[in-house]
Amino acid sequence: MSELLNRIRKTSLHSRIKNVEEVLPLFKDGMNLGWSGFTPAGYPKAIPIALADHVEKNGLQGKLRFNLFIGASVGVETEDRWASLDMIDRRWPYQTGKNIQAGINEGRIRMGDKHLSLFAQDLGYGFYTKDSGGRIDIGIIECSAITEDGGLILTASCGAVPEIVKIADKIIIELNTSVPNYEGLHDIIEPIDPPNRLPFLISRVDDRAGTPYVRVDNDKIIAIVESTHPDNGRAFSEQDDTSEAIANNIMDFFQFEVKNGRLPKNLLPLQSGVGSIANAVIGGLAKAPFTGLKVWTEVLQDTMLDLLDSGKLDFASTVSLSFSNGGFKRFYEKWDFYAPKVLMRPLSIANAPEPIRRLGCIAMNTPVEFDIYAHANSTLVGGTRMINGIGGSGDFLRNAYLSIMHTPSVRPSKTDPLGITCVVPKAPHIDHTEHDLDVLVTEQGLADLRGLAPKDRAQMIIDKCVHPAYKPIIQEYFDMAKKECLAKRIGHEPQLFDRCFKMQWNLAKNGTMRIDNWDVSINF
Amino acid sequence: MSELLNRIRKTSLHSRIKNVEEVLPLFKDGMNLGWSGFTPAGYPKAIPIALADHVEKNGLQGKLRFNLFIGASVGVETEDRWASLDMIDRRWPYQTGKNIQAGINEGRIRMGDKHLSLFAQDLGYGFYTKDSGGRIDIGIIECSAITEDGGLILTASCGAVPEIVKIADKIIIELNTSVPNYEGLHDIIEPIDPPNRLPFLISRVDDRAGTPYVRVDNDKIIAIVESTHPDNGRAFSEQDDTSEAIANNIMDFFQFEVKNGRLPKNLLPLQSGVGSIANAVIGGLAKAPFTGLKVWTEVLQDTMLDLLDSGKLDFASTVSLSFSNGGFKRFYEKWDFYAPKVLMRPLSIANAPEPIRRLGCIAMNTPVEFDIYAHANSTLVGGTRMINGIGGSGDFLRNAYLSIMHTPSVRPSKTDPLGITCVVPKAPHIDHTEHDLDVLVTEQGLADLRGLAPKDRAQMIIDKCVHPAYKPIIQEYFDMAKKECLAKRIGHEPQLFDRCFKMQWNLAKNGTMRIDNWDVSINF
Repeated sequence: MSELLNRIRKTSLHSRIKNVEEVLPLFKDGMNLGWSGFTPAGYPKAIPIALADHVEKNGLQGKLRFNLFIGASVGVETEDRWASLDMIDRRWPYQTGKNIQAGINEGRIRMGDKHLSLFAQDLGYGFYTKDSGGRIDIGIIECSAITEDGGLILTASCGAVPEIVKIADKIIIELNTSVPNYEGLHDIIEPIDPPNRLPFLISRVDDRAGTPYVRVDNDKIIAIVESTHPDNGRAFSEQDDTSEAIANNIMDFFQFEVKNGRLPKNLLPLQSGVGSIANAVIGGLAKAPFTGLKVWTEVLQDTMLDLLDSGKLDFASTVSLSFSNGGFKRFYEKWDFYAPKVLMRPLSIANAPEPIRRLGCIAMNTPVEFDIYAHANSTLVGGTRMINGIGGSGDFLRNAYLSIMHTPSVRPSKTDPLGITCVVPKAPHIDHTEHDLDVLVTEQGLADLRGLAPKDRAQMIIDKCVHPAYKPIIQEYFDMAKKECLAKRIGHEPQLFDRCFKMQWNLAKNGTMRIDNWDVSINF
Repeated sequence: MSELLNRIRKTSLHSRIKNVEEVLPLFKDGMNLGWSGFTPAGYPKAIPIALADHVEKNGLQGKLRFNLFIGASVGVETEDRWASLDMIDRRWPYQTGKNIQAGINEGRIRMGDKHLSLFAQDLGYGFYTKDSGGRIDIGIIECSAITEDGGLILTASCGAVPEIVKIADKIIIELNTSVPNYEGLHDIIEPIDPPNRLPFLISRVDDRAGTPYVRVDNDKIIAIVESTHPDNGRAFSEQDDTSEAIANNIMDFFQFEVKNGRLPKNLLPLQSGVGSIANAVIGGLAKAPFTGLKVWTEVLQDTMLDLLDSGKLDFASTVSLSFSNGGFKRFYEKWDFYAPKVLMRPLSIANAPEPIRRLGCIAMNTPVEFDIYAHANSTLVGGTRMINGIGGSGDFLRNAYLSIMHTPSVRPSKTDPLGITCVVPKAPHIDHTEHDLDVLVTEQGLADLRGLAPKDRAQMIIDKCVHPAYKPIIQEYFDMAKKECLAKRIGHEPQLFDRCFKMQWNLAKNGTMRIDNWDVSINF
């Protein structure tokens, strides 16, 4: 018997096995589609790639457009290629890829940007498709097996699968025989709508509160297609000196907190984003004197395998395995070592405020920039241009025991290596507010803002986080704003609305945010 | 036996009864104080008033200053009078009163503005007093009785009492014999720090998950002072035509949602703020065809008594009873009718994301203003001047099933009855982001933003919510911003940073936000 038949243990479903070509005619222009997948892992590949080929071959660009609802980003060979072929109308709630970003920022693709925990449940409530009766037409779910009772065993992520199968009229399974059977690595809680939802009985990162498979009305499964496409693994971000300096600042802070009794010796469950700073932080933990660590997060990168290897990390709960191709190889080769230490959960659980706050996570994320009062921009460069989306950063930063944002203090512009300061007087777009953030870190230092009022926060952020090239500029702004606003008795959080964006104007005009003075004359 | 002795059922505590004059010397300049109380109810009055008298009589203004940590605002005869006597250095996390606001906006009082659910737990973690070992010097707790085992029976609010008694070195009880014994009206869960916190086993608004009293180490109780001061009851906000039109828009929306199966017939647990719009909404519910209603909120106003009287409201969970003096009289007179239908919880439970999201609350709050992309300003008029604080609005709006903000479309300026639009191109301060809000309402109409991308949101907000006097002005801005940003391929959420605050500049210069055109010339 073939591996495909072996993996479909409910044999009555064998009759629904189809070739990819047979399912393509099911897809009609304007449909709402839900895919499995999360931060390129566990997404359907065979059908999306075949549909793209079909559009390209038949010149159907702009004539076969879909609304895509997926846990988060998926591989560029799927959604980004779809964007390049004008196959996407709406896209919720997060994406990556040059073509899809171009489509969004040029007004061709309508992207909705929502906290991931809310995305999952609002999708399940039918809010995003309320004009279609709250339904989606087709769900495409990558699985590694189907149980005797028709339960879906997912692959390298859980994403928003429970909600998608709940509201999908039809379901197509991509059964991926090129990956191992992931059975036992998932913990799925069926989404129950209020007012009948019950507590999530998770009080340790390794607690199981659900089932290892996704329950689904099997009558909805109209086709099972074999896939042999591997995930398009995430490339490894190299560390650099700046990232390492940031990580060192965070390690020093952790040790200080342990010493002062505000953190246990093994810290608290860690959430860490992706990219070079996150890698440096994980690298820092591997060298630091903390053992018995736990992780409660959305994505595991290759560095987490190192931390598991080191024996310092006990357990990791995640939404997805976002490994490089080499990372997946390692994971598969040492399956018996890694698998008992990892659990994947849907984002409606992993990102839910309930366990994040109960467990007391330490959240660490990178913004585009933050301002002197600790408002952070995570999504829109220059205040208008979408990069990826807010993702789960708000879920974690609002609910963590410690909410930490880290960024280099400066980035290069096209003409000035220090042309962009990541600490600004006023963030041009705000995703996380002053009410949410505890600690801000750059390679310059760490500002612990807990218990500080706005003006005290601002001075500490300037002192600790701002690059020396910008320190006098931003200090001058703050002093000026304080003086003018306090004189007018409106100075709880001083700002000067005729000047607060001068650095951004100067960047557009002169290629750098380094300004000579704060003089501005405005006529209107 | 006196009523005071009757109420202190643990008789060994009788020896700690003191006169208010005896405890005044315990208070030293620079101390951290925690008070019971929440949105003027259940706060200590005898000692704060006596301390103010002491400062006034002895000319100690500025020489006896305290850091005040209280669940939310308390009566003006206490904190606002303290502010007028320069008795407050730091104040966390919310306040009301002209003098305290003046102190904050003139830079004399340092206010920290935090989501109430986070305030409670961060206070308990010792974050706000970390320079003093995470402790507070004295907690002053208003009680209506003490049990045989020394449990504290609170009065008309729970506030942050469990966290305050946990970190207080010393506790003084104000036992208020002028109010009934509130025993049985509170449900207190002892705050346990991560990683050992357990689920809150609340899945209905009337579920009890704790004890009817606050457990406290009785050795910390250094004095019990009798108080006969009633709460300074909240004045009733009169309704007006604008509020009623807003409420009608919301009732129509609820009926539409029920009809479309997205809300059950008895709706979902309601959270409603304070003020005239909130009163109009509750009044609207009394007239609407919904029965079996439930409330999960922070404050109960007089109108909730009407709703209970009408038989349409089954049960209300709250942090405090924020009645007028007449409302308290009604409540006490019909105690046997009201008491079984009301439960008070600490804000670490009532405002926690966990029950709010599980129960699927409908959150309704009034901002200062919101912008065309659904970012809302709840705290700082003009972007810099503090009014009260964010309170629990973020706890509810981030976690509700439906997040609704309502405001009049315009407010008068000093010289123009339509001088201020509450829908602006860009909010000058942001407390709630586009990722949080579902529905925006003015007397003009209701914008249901679920499932809409930013530019679609903007058009709907302009169409439904903006006052006719401002519609052409804001439409012109949006069209112009869209055109310029899309041409530059940076148009996910178009803004023009050289003009976005022109209406605010015009208000400052010419007394109105009604501008003739969007022309601006800037030299820098």
